[in-house]
Amino acid sequence: MNQEQLQVSIRAQLRAFDDQAFDRLTRALPLADVVEALGAHPPEAVSRLLQAMRPKLAADVLALLPAEQQDELLQRLPQPAVVAVFERLPSDLRADLYKRLSQNEQSRLLPALGRMVRDDILKLASYGEDTVGSVTSSDYAAISPQLTAAEAMAALRAGDRQQIEVIYIVGHEHQLLGTLPLRELVLAPLETSVAELMQHNPAYAEAGWARHRAADLIRHYELLALPVLDEAQRMIGIVTIDDAMDIEREDDTGRLASFGGAAPLDKGNLDVVHSSVRRMFSVRVFWLLILTVFGAITSTFVAQQEELLSNVVILAAFIAPIVDMGGNAGSQSATLVIRSMALGQLKLNWRDVAFVIRRELPVAAALGVAVALLDMVLSHFSKGVGADILLVVGLSMMLCTLAGGVIGAMLPFLAKRLGTDPATLSSPLITSIMDMLGVFIYFGLAYAFLGHLLA
Amino acid sequence: MNQEQLQVSIRAQLRAFDDQAFDRLTRALPLADVVEALGAHPPEAVSRLLQAMRPKLAADVLALLPAEQQDELLQRLPQPAVVAVFERLPSDLRADLYKRLSQNEQSRLLPALGRMVRDDILKLASYGEDTVGSVTSSDYAAISPQLTAAEAMAALRAGDRQQIEVIYIVGHEHQLLGTLPLRELVLAPLETSVAELMQHNPAYAEAGWARHRAADLIRHYELLALPVLDEAQRMIGIVTIDDAMDIEREDDTGRLASFGGAAPLDKGNLDVVHSSVRRMFSVRVFWLLILTVFGAITSTFVAQQEELLSNVVILAAFIAPIVDMGGNAGSQSATLVIRSMALGQLKLNWRDVAFVIRRELPVAAALGVAVALLDMVLSHFSKGVGADILLVVGLSMMLCTLAGGVIGAMLPFLAKRLGTDPATLSSPLITSIMDMLGVFIYFGLAYAFLGHLLA
Repeated sequence: MNQEQLQVSIRAQLRAFDDQAFDRLTRALPLADVVEALGAHPPEAVSRLLQAMRPKLAADVLALLPAEQQDELLQRLPQPAVVAVFERLPSDLRADLYKRLSQNEQSRLLPALGRMVRDDILKLASYGEDTVGSVTSSDYAAISPQLTAAEAMAALRAGDRQQIEVIYIVGHEHQLLGTLPLRELVLAPLETSVAELMQHNPAYAEAGWARHRAADLIRHYELLALPVLDEAQRMIGIVTIDDAMDIEREDDTGRLASFGGAAPLDKGNLDVVHSSVRRMFSVRVFWLLILTVFGAITSTFVAQQEELLSNVVILAAFIAPIVDMGGNAGSQSATLVIRSMALGQLKLNWRDVAFVIRRELPVAAALGVAVALLDMVLSHFSKGVGADILLVVGLSMMLCTLAGGVIGAMLPFLAKRLGTDPATLSSPLITSIMDMLGVFIYFGLAYAFLGHLLA
Repeated sequence: MNQEQLQVSIRAQLRAFDDQAFDRLTRALPLADVVEALGAHPPEAVSRLLQAMRPKLAADVLALLPAEQQDELLQRLPQPAVVAVFERLPSDLRADLYKRLSQNEQSRLLPALGRMVRDDILKLASYGEDTVGSVTSSDYAAISPQLTAAEAMAALRAGDRQQIEVIYIVGHEHQLLGTLPLRELVLAPLETSVAELMQHNPAYAEAGWARHRAADLIRHYELLALPVLDEAQRMIGIVTIDDAMDIEREDDTGRLASFGGAAPLDKGNLDVVHSSVRRMFSVRVFWLLILTVFGAITSTFVAQQEELLSNVVILAAFIAPIVDMGGNAGSQSATLVIRSMALGQLKLNWRDVAFVIRRELPVAAALGVAVALLDMVLSHFSKGVGADILLVVGLSMMLCTLAGGVIGAMLPFLAKRLGTDPATLSSPLITSIMDMLGVFIYFGLAYAFLGHLLA
């Protein structure tokens, strides 16, 4: 059964559903699939269902719903149900939900929560949106270095922590002493002391760091979870590999938006589904206005070629294809370089710059020749263009493709040097640079080869 | 100490290094960092060092090196050292390394390996490059459902498996019966039977499936590892969440290359560092030649406007900026829609198409007005363009931006409908569609408003 068939079947079973039927379903099938099928039900029904469930299950279900549905359900649930669910949600999600409540709702909810939960929420909610703290979970197992392996296992069984894939060894002030993967604890002889087993000097992140640094460390050291410390170097929680995957997914798709010239200059991601029309406009208008200014320079230059253009009107026909080709070849080489940078294959140094130029030159030259030949053949047969103009068009095509390829490959290095994301700078810039350079090349060659027509 | 300082310090310590010094370093510091510093050493030195190390450590070090260095070292190491390392490498990496050997080297190495290792390599190496099988590791713990929790833990301690975060419960024919996270095994009462604890009907992948499906399942069900079955539904290994992160990283950066029109039509990724010049050319020339054909249509249309152009030469000046603006607005909206699709916020159905159009229309219209106004002001002051031409240019700018935004937002849906990756189809197509549409709009408006000049 594939995902879609599964969804159809679950929806059918949920049609006349109550909490017992739901409970049965969640025992037989993965919770993620059952929850996905809830999306087809009206919010009132889901809200009634959540109230009828065990609070732990209700929290697990809520955790798997999309953010908008979570917010809507929190509005509908009565206060005691919200409190029961809040006490059982994963701590990082709980802090996120809390931050999305209105100030009124926040101040109504807080006093109703237990002290531990309240402090936890306030601590995690205090970190900014793109910080490590905002993805930190306070569900982790911490033990003292004096325990033996057997005692540590007993402590884990007695505790109520869910995330115990990695165990943290902490001192009296909750300072981080070492880490111990559950795997190694289980495989160790029962009498070994935790202090002997643990890894010293583990990698960690501070809560105030940019969240992508936590994802980078998890990837670099191949960790299941990364400990998070506060400013006083006390351990306050962990970032899990799941969170790292989500961070990377959002950052990578953000890189795509950057490349299209649709990434905001502040850090929050633009989102075609949730961002307001006003915000969509203000983020996107930035690059388009810059391009308009560049375009005005280009058009001013072309306007100055009035004499040549009015003598050889056909020249106007090739402006768009020639400048586009430079931009397109440039986009190609820029994306390839940005991709290699993202995979860590290329660094910002002169050796790599020289390497890329050596690689790109023959490719871009060959592309230029191929494109120029095809365009000359097509132009000859479709428009019966004369040999001298064909020569100008073909040469311009070739030079623009070559220049676009090489400049496109260089821009990501320039962006890195300037300290910005290569993706943000590259694509819109290539288009406008190649527009200007393209008309210079084109009309320069036109004067050289067709100048005699002006006399 | 940040990563760079760490590297400098490790390199200094490794300068006059031997295997004892290396061993000391690996005990004090994360292996990933020590291995990274090896990159600065000549291959002969690294090869000597690997031979002096314990084979297990040598295998761990080799596993962390970049692919080219792995290949080079395998060439240099004497056969017995290669065999010792091969027997201890993670099984998925081992199969990759084996596949990269020449046929000669393969047939020299195979007979020297133990039978189990040999069979394992041949089985995993038989799966194609982008399949689940190619990222499958055969290092996993499988137990029988009859054991109690205490017996299961004893079995894990007695075994030699490294990857035991999730334990697999299999039947006599190695068919998959259920899964049990190590966490739950540890927390369970010692006398409970594994059959009671295990999760039934776990998600799985087949070895022949496309590898991104394994990554999708791991993300969807928030798994640490996904079991992999062969065609006869016998369990042959696992894909870990680490592998899923790598798959997603490669696919996401591949999506960026697609968007730049630099993604190969076959599946292997293009790589600016390693792909041959010939392959770089043949992949990239495809889109550029298509764009050349589209460009020829555009230029033919413009050439037909000779009469209008020779009367109002200034019109030629605005061709490039106007068609570019449509392409840029389209790239922006396309990337935002592709991004939302990648994050699972938008699906292929009419409701979402209508939703996106409703969202994009006001934004693109506002962008069009802003861009048109700026361009009219700039054109008036820079080129002293008359009111009637300003009107044509401004209206064209506005309509192109609006059309680009809306068409750009629709193309990813069209690509999905056609079953191709939205990123591949979108960007090069937007450029050429908006070129053609742009000149139609521009010269259409020019005839409407300036036609009287022709008489």
